[in-house]
Amino acid sequence: MRATIMYGAGDVRVENVPDARLIEPADALVVVTRAGICGSDLWPYRTMGHSESGRRMGHEFIGVVEAVGADVRKIKVGDLVAAPFLYSDGTCIFCREGLHSSCLHGGRYGFNDVDGGQGEAVRVPQADGTLVPLPVGKDHALMPSLLTLTDVMATGHHAAVSAKVGPGKTVAVVGGGAVGLCGVIAAKRLGAEQIILLDRHPDRIALAKAFGATDIVSERGDEAIARVRELTKGLGVQSVLECVGYEESTRTALSIARPGGAVGRVGVPQDEVMPAALPTFFNNVTIAGGPAPARAYIEKLLPDVLEGRIQPGRVFDWVGRLDGVPDGYRAMNNREAIKVLIEF
Amino acid sequence: MRATIMYGAGDVRVENVPDARLIEPADALVVVTRAGICGSDLWPYRTMGHSESGRRMGHEFIGVVEAVGADVRKIKVGDLVAAPFLYSDGTCIFCREGLHSSCLHGGRYGFNDVDGGQGEAVRVPQADGTLVPLPVGKDHALMPSLLTLTDVMATGHHAAVSAKVGPGKTVAVVGGGAVGLCGVIAAKRLGAEQIILLDRHPDRIALAKAFGATDIVSERGDEAIARVRELTKGLGVQSVLECVGYEESTRTALSIARPGGAVGRVGVPQDEVMPAALPTFFNNVTIAGGPAPARAYIEKLLPDVLEGRIQPGRVFDWVGRLDGVPDGYRAMNNREAIKVLIEF
Repeated sequence: MRATIMYGAGDVRVENVPDARLIEPADALVVVTRAGICGSDLWPYRTMGHSESGRRMGHEFIGVVEAVGADVRKIKVGDLVAAPFLYSDGTCIFCREGLHSSCLHGGRYGFNDVDGGQGEAVRVPQADGTLVPLPVGKDHALMPSLLTLTDVMATGHHAAVSAKVGPGKTVAVVGGGAVGLCGVIAAKRLGAEQIILLDRHPDRIALAKAFGATDIVSERGDEAIARVRELTKGLGVQSVLECVGYEESTRTALSIARPGGAVGRVGVPQDEVMPAALPTFFNNVTIAGGPAPARAYIEKLLPDVLEGRIQPGRVFDWVGRLDGVPDGYRAMNNREAIKVLIEF
Repeated sequence: MRATIMYGAGDVRVENVPDARLIEPADALVVVTRAGICGSDLWPYRTMGHSESGRRMGHEFIGVVEAVGADVRKIKVGDLVAAPFLYSDGTCIFCREGLHSSCLHGGRYGFNDVDGGQGEAVRVPQADGTLVPLPVGKDHALMPSLLTLTDVMATGHHAAVSAKVGPGKTVAVVGGGAVGLCGVIAAKRLGAEQIILLDRHPDRIALAKAFGATDIVSERGDEAIARVRELTKGLGVQSVLECVGYEESTRTALSIARPGGAVGRVGVPQDEVMPAALPTFFNNVTIAGGPAPARAYIEKLLPDVLEGRIQPGRVFDWVGRLDGVPDGYRAMNNREAIKVLIEF
């Protein structure tokens, strides 16, 4: 079959690989119908050292179940399924608490003989715990929005939940990439009154406004902090969604939270330490977040997607086929695309 | 009057100062009957550069109201009052949310013409918002426990609340100083099932066990982390109370939290950055806490003290008079005392 392999920074190829197949009795074999390129795929795209064997890529996908292992009970051959970006058993202590991203028997796609999602088929471990059947046909018009539930919309929602967004609250979203845009959707959905987006790219800003952003701050650093204070009677915001992960964005996020506020961070931190520990302490600002338990959120968000109340699929502004994946990486990396959708 | 002044590291003196007096119409003049030395007083005691004018010390005290300003309505002359370690107006947006430690018109004792608590009398700004009348006589046997409500017990409680301690939960308390010991009391009071104290001093350990600690970990660093994991089926604890503030203790606290857990930090951070940002992120560990809104907690904890259900006053193991304050600092700094009580 054909699949995406990254050999180093800037070096993504679509090549022939061994066909995906069942290995464990809890596996399902899923033929991919849609896949996404994730902002987190760009970290290795920018920094990965050369690898002879390469690394299988992709962790956002929807597909049709072609075969299931002997222990699989709930997932059936022929099901159209959404695969959250981590697999999980659904039964361990953390899954039962709704934190599937810390599943004791879970893991990531593209590692340990598990295929990546940017390929024709994937062996999905823990199929019953992981996969969510979708009640629509495989080419339904809602596919882009449904695909976002596997990662980016779940992650934006996790940022909002971690930042304690609620009715009437003031919210800031740091970073208007696909996750930040989904964070705007999530904040609006949870009842936020004021939603300030910190970003400077016109295409993202336009989409953020369509999703419910009430204010835009295009300054950076201390100027951005001052501008957010101006917009919030000098207090700062109650909830901050940190959707970038850099030191500067984290510092900004922690600095614009008002006393007693909360920062939900979902941008993978690029530093071992966290800045601004001291002002955060004196202001009793809570820092929460991490990898989203997408499996837990899919069922929560699915009705809103199916009934058209949220349209996160609009973050996909570049659509291609599998052979176009390398171009998709380039487009996202050069900010010519917010997010790339691959159709099979 | 006599009051405590710090002139630099290790240099604390009790000297004559101008008598405390009313200045603003919202002030009360409080004649101090009991005061404490706080662990946070030891930070300047260890590091303060020499100052010609010195710095007035003390922020934990109980006393009798001798006079009130023209705008004071609730507090009456003759009231015995507890003064939380920060003053606050009780009416601003943050006070109304219960976060009196971020009061827009609040502040600290010992600065801006406000006296310190380790002296014979104190001008207390925002008296109606700040002071809490006590329904007992000024020499009641419960004075030590009542005095802890002004800071150390409120701070231990804040650590527990910030760490989301609740019924049946697993808890670790990092640091068995007076705050950590009150954290043990708070965790027990909130229904924790397992309470692990990380400390190595026999006197503190004995008191922690009396307060409800179920396990003691005396190792440090990676060994402490491994030991806590052993005690918690390899998972880590749900709630961590960080009661020290050093880089190593913070790293330990963040590392022993289980996925989805929370760290309540009340030890004043001694570093500008926070360690272990990355594992904390991947485990979805929440970091919360800061200066306790003691004003909000006093009324919550007061019944338990008055009815003897908690005995935080036991953390005072050294009692002296005002002239003995310099000896009290030395005793605490040399770990010969857990906490010092000053009687007037």
